[in-house]
Amino acid sequence: MGNTFGHLFRITTFGESHGGGVGVVIDGCPPRLEISSEEIQFELDRRRPGQSKITTPRKEEDKCEILSGVFEGKTLGTPISILVRNKDTRSQDYDEMSVKYRPSHADATYDAKYGFRNWQGGGRSSARETIGRVAAGAIAKKILRQVAGVEVIAYVQRIKGLEGIIDVNTVTLADVESNIVRCPDAATADKMIELIEQTGRQGNSIGGVVECVARHVPKGLGEPVFDKLEADIAKAVMSLPASKGFEIGSGFDGTLLTGFEHNDEFYTDEDGEIRTLTNRSGGVQGGISNGENIIIRVAFKPTATIRKEQKTVTNEGEETVLAGKGRHDPCVLPRAVPMVEAMVALVLCDHLLRNHGQCKLL
Amino acid sequence: MGNTFGHLFRITTFGESHGGGVGVVIDGCPPRLEISSEEIQFELDRRRPGQSKITTPRKEEDKCEILSGVFEGKTLGTPISILVRNKDTRSQDYDEMSVKYRPSHADATYDAKYGFRNWQGGGRSSARETIGRVAAGAIAKKILRQVAGVEVIAYVQRIKGLEGIIDVNTVTLADVESNIVRCPDAATADKMIELIEQTGRQGNSIGGVVECVARHVPKGLGEPVFDKLEADIAKAVMSLPASKGFEIGSGFDGTLLTGFEHNDEFYTDEDGEIRTLTNRSGGVQGGISNGENIIIRVAFKPTATIRKEQKTVTNEGEETVLAGKGRHDPCVLPRAVPMVEAMVALVLCDHLLRNHGQCKLL
Amino acid sequence: MGNTFGHLFRITTFGESHGGGVGVVIDGCPPRLEISSEEIQFELDRRRPGQSKITTPRKEEDKCEILSGVFEGKTLGTPISILVRNKDTRSQDYDEMSVKYRPSHADATYDAKYGFRNWQGGGRSSARETIGRVAAGAIAKKILRQVAGVEVIAYVQRIKGLEGIIDVNTVTLADVESNIVRCPDAATADKMIELIEQTGRQGNSIGGVVECVARHVPKGLGEPVFDKLEADIAKAVMSLPASKGFEIGSGFDGTLLTGFEHNDEFYTDEDGEIRTLTNRSGGVQGGISNGENIIIRVAFKPTATIRKEQKTVTNEGEETVLAGKGRHDPCVLPRAVPMVEAMVALVLCDHLLRNHGQCKLL
Amino acid sequence: MGNTFGHLFRITTFGESHGGGVGVVIDGCPPRLEISSEEIQFELDRRRPGQSKITTPRKEEDKCEILSGVFEGKTLGTPISILVRNKDTRSQDYDEMSVKYRPSHADATYDAKYGFRNWQGGGRSSARETIGRVAAGAIAKKILRQVAGVEVIAYVQRIKGLEGIIDVNTVTLADVESNIVRCPDAATADKMIELIEQTGRQGNSIGGVVECVARHVPKGLGEPVFDKLEADIAKAVMSLPASKGFEIGSGFDGTLLTGFEHNDEFYTDEDGEIRTLTNRSGGVQGGISNGENIIIRVAFKPTATIRKEQKTVTNEGEETVLAGKGRHDPCVLPRAVPMVEAMVALVLCDHLLRNHGQCKLL
Repeated sequence: MGNTFGHLFRITTFGESHGGGVGVVIDGCPPRLEISSEEIQFELDRRRPGQSKITTPRKEEDKCEILSGVFEGKTLGTPISILVRNKDTRSQDYDEMSVKYRPSHADATYDAKYGFRNWQGGGRSSARETIGRVAAGAIAKKILRQVAGVEVIAYVQRIKGLEGIIDVNTVTLADVESNIVRCPDAATADKMIELIEQTGRQGNSIGGVVECVARHVPKGLGEPVFDKLEADIAKAVMSLPASKGFEIGSGFDGTLLTGFEHNDEFYTDEDGEIRTLTNRSGGVQGGISNGENIIIRVAFKPTATIRKEQKTVTNEGEETVLAGKGRHDPCVLPRAVPMVEAMVALVLCDHLLRNHGQCKLL
Repeated sequence: MGNTFGHLFRITTFGESHGGGVGVVIDGCPPRLEISSEEIQFELDRRRPGQSKITTPRKEEDKCEILSGVFEGKTLGTPISILVRNKDTRSQDYDEMSVKYRPSHADATYDAKYGFRNWQGGGRSSARETIGRVAAGAIAKKILRQVAGVEVIAYVQRIKGLEGIIDVNTVTLADVESNIVRCPDAATADKMIELIEQTGRQGNSIGGVVECVARHVPKGLGEPVFDKLEADIAKAVMSLPASKGFEIGSGFDGTLLTGFEHNDEFYTDEDGEIRTLTNRSGGVQGGISNGENIIIRVAFKPTATIRKEQKTVTNEGEETVLAGKGRHDPCVLPRAVPMVEAMVALVLCDHLLRNHGQCKLL
Repeated sequence: MGNTFGHLFRITTFGESHGGGVGVVIDGCPPRLEISSEEIQFELDRRRPGQSKITTPRKEEDKCEILSGVFEGKTLGTPISILVRNKDTRSQDYDEMSVKYRPSHADATYDAKYGFRNWQGGGRSSARETIGRVAAGAIAKKILRQVAGVEVIAYVQRIKGLEGIIDVNTVTLADVESNIVRCPDAATADKMIELIEQTGRQGNSIGGVVECVARHVPKGLGEPVFDKLEADIAKAVMSLPASKGFEIGSGFDGTLLTGFEHNDEFYTDEDGEIRTLTNRSGGVQGGISNGENIIIRVAFKPTATIRKEQKTVTNEGEETVLAGKGRHDPCVLPRAVPMVEAMVALVLCDHLLRNHGQCKLL
Repeated sequence: MGNTFGHLFRITTFGESHGGGVGVVIDGCPPRLEISSEEIQFELDRRRPGQSKITTPRKEEDKCEILSGVFEGKTLGTPISILVRNKDTRSQDYDEMSVKYRPSHADATYDAKYGFRNWQGGGRSSARETIGRVAAGAIAKKILRQVAGVEVIAYVQRIKGLEGIIDVNTVTLADVESNIVRCPDAATADKMIELIEQTGRQGNSIGGVVECVARHVPKGLGEPVFDKLEADIAKAVMSLPASKGFEIGSGFDGTLLTGFEHNDEFYTDEDGEIRTLTNRSGGVQGGISNGENIIIRVAFKPTATIRKEQKTVTNEGEETVLAGKGRHDPCVLPRAVPMVEAMVALVLCDHLLRNHGQCKLL
């Protein structure tokens, strides 16, 4: 019952890591938007495992098919359904998983809740579920760009203790895609790649922080009081697998300042636009966008799947040990970048429609 | 359109800081729950300004009236409407505010969105709106306690750089209420109080972190994939005024660990219950509660209202300066404690109802 | 959990027939709409019992108070909360009702569902609940009129076997209000009034049909496939107390025609507008308004409360008899007229906002 | 944005009559329900055109594939996605439709709303969309049967002026399926079939009434005040293509009775259960099921597609004529039977979950 997100631009994802496939139904997409499966595939390829030496080598093709909602290359305003087939290769790796709970995975809680689960991989809790989100996000980003020139750009800001220095005002998609770790600070990126490779060789994993900036966001997005823009974005990204924390603007560090230091003073720019001199608010005041850059950060824990042996129990409660077999993903951060972008874009697009309706937007 | 929160236990708040009053309609409350306006008033009094020397001296009585949904001291299962009247004292303090935008307040964004606002105080963006949340939270906490023995306890964990040391397993409401800053570490609390008073004398303000623990939460709360428990809690608390960040379990610090260090190993306890040896997950795995303590933290920025002069503009875009008049609240954290408790309780109660329905719960 | 209606223009009603009061919170109302409590009171007075000799003589003043959302006579875009206090006069009439279930009332089903009920009158199932709907409908009608010149006019079309002849193209509010039975066919109205009075003297009750026309509805309202305009209107009016049937356009009688007879042929009018020659569709095709008059009918059963003795049981299941005491309402139809208008207006207004958003509408 | 139905048992349909396919995502289905694609296919075959000589001869195979949510023959509690591929045969019949609006179809209103449409057949407004509903309904019916022994049986009650006499207490699925018109009154069924064939030969079409009974519905389903059981059912069936009216229990005819005649008196049956002597309420009182048979009727207009020439306009507004080409469906009623069953079952199942939650139901 929690597989739908959004109020007017609304997505419903479906699918487990094993079974027929995964996908999404997008309801509320404005009509007459030009969209192709290639544009969606571009984002899916960024999300895909096995795209570089530092991500999990599991080969997934993840070719998407648009089943409905698009006619002669343009959206109809009806639900857009997108399907990505699973390669149904039952690995022996999964045999052990049918009885043993993987530490810090969702195996045990799914069993507790549903009394039944698809133990072939992560089932519904697999990161494979995010395919539907990223596909929908590709469309949301296109709408935002086309309607209002909004750019949504995420990147790896930190891996473990290695922190990149990135200018939120100028960073581009090309910068982000210029290296496989998706940190647009080349020197730090090299160190990050080395750390990930080394960690992978040890059968271990690491986490970090993804930052996302949305530029040129129109003023007035966000609905007081519960659907504040930052509240909706927080929910959006905290629903991604492995996320443990969220910040907007000054975030946790902002609590170390005084009000006098923290407040964003107003001024009027050359175009007569009311602006703020600083942006500790992160582009949102009172839950409503103020036209400045929206800047958020998401903490991702180190991947739970590792090749080192750890204590666990079986579904019968017997104590045992478990070590991930074969290949694993030592760091999910580079693949999390398009996921964060997608979620932020989905929220912004939903609020854009709340302000303007579906049909008059384009 | 964003004034409703929750799916089955659903609240709708209303009211501006000035006008007839503020309040809440609670839809979905289980029938036959004993509830009195005194129990609700207890929580409202914790939220109320002017309750101690370190909170804003603005006197508000905030007496609540239950308008519907309760009969002979018990809930009917119908909507519970609770009203708190405003004292409609138009202050001259507000005259300046009708034209000047207060920095880091919602004045400018409300004007941008609605083209009109109640400039007498914060209007809808005032913290006064949280009265409805706290009233509803009082009921949610009672349901949680009665149905499942769940305890939801929040407290001030940090004020600016001053950090309390608190044991999440043992901290009680009495501990929290033992001092006016609501930090259950007495020594640190004293320093915090001193810092707040000193800051207030300077006309400045400070922020910090509220931590909240929910103990004895049943396994199985939370709905994959978008309504994960931590996602719903994140949205809940990020919709509170002045919140800038959210963490669950290991949070941002967890990104500094490896997977081997971070994973929570499983064991079976003396009662045959599957448990985790550590709790870096913060009580939630795969978006579903695992029976361990749910532990979250919320960053609150320093209050925007200060008595120091700052640059700003008028609603016509003219540059000017503004300084808060008279009294101000140098630190919102002690009053934020019951707000965070309320929001966490509302989410847990909503998910409890999703698992069991409204009418069979009690 | 079912006390909220609408998606973007969203109302939540609260209150029982006895207790503090009844009312409504309206979320999503466009900002900058001029509205006064007098305009709302006008509609409440049309709904009020005791307004004429043929309605129930129970005296209710039903004075409304706007608690929030309006400032200096204009809407803020924030929730509008409206309260009508109950006169808490516990009648001895109600003593018997605490144990005996009134036939064809909701006493037994509320007890079955909630295990508890307010037996002082109808509680939440009382027609008094519709005060909130009618108050919200007054605002919806004003928005519709102001934004698009839409007129929503309901009237009594039939009482028992007495059927009025009314021209949907020309009927006005003044016509409807020209007699106490609200049937704008004067000759039939007289007979209806006589029949109602005679029925009342016998301690019995009668029902009938309310028809509602919405003129000048813009093309394009309604969302395929589940939120078709007629589906949303059907739900809206079938949620009114005592309603047993719904029709749009040709309705049940249309099933007696062939497709050739039933289809609405298209033509282009002098303004170049695409129109239909007939209107058996009732203004909606494929769930979307086509610009023609929207015409619907609602069947209301005879009021369940009568003064004649009938068989019933107590809440313990003991068989007994019951007769309504004192005064009763022999025919709810005249008072149902503003209720139907309100519900149709709420749906149209909600769909108008879906097309245009909240803030840009006015 | 209106492609989702239900609150806890929630379906989202997708797909146009032409394009990749049509289908449904079902969110909230209880885990551990045994379900096979054969069970779903059984209902789809009842809905399918071309199943008998009196329905449209268009051949559609409509083979369904379960893409997700089912593992080892049992539901996982995760979204169940079901896909039926379209046979993408572009007919020349459709060429004319790209410019001419078919009378009483949705062509013109879709163009008015979206500014664009799939003119190859009905697009999203095609009855083909109901495949997803019927597939979901198959699962809902199984849950209802398994959890509470609820039987949902619909049948053709009237075709034009030919009315069947059916006993709602005893009618079975076998009775309904015993003839191709799905009227379980054999003598009338023969006349109906003859009338349909004759009408078809004339290139014309006819409508009628589908009745549906739900037996053994538990007491307590339905949520006052807007989500009354009859209100939700009304919306459900009024969202079906070609429906023009809805009744519950005594319906429109009930308005001809007095209250004394209409009221359902209570008694206590041999099992101590509180029952009603009559059932003019149709199984619902105050919006809540009372344990009696739920009985509803839906009016379906004569199919809009006929082979006779009618006046219409082009999308440019030019006046012209149009006659349906080739084959057409002279009467949709037999195929509407499984659609009505599905919609009623979906509502009941949704309310069952509201009372009991998703995971504890089975």
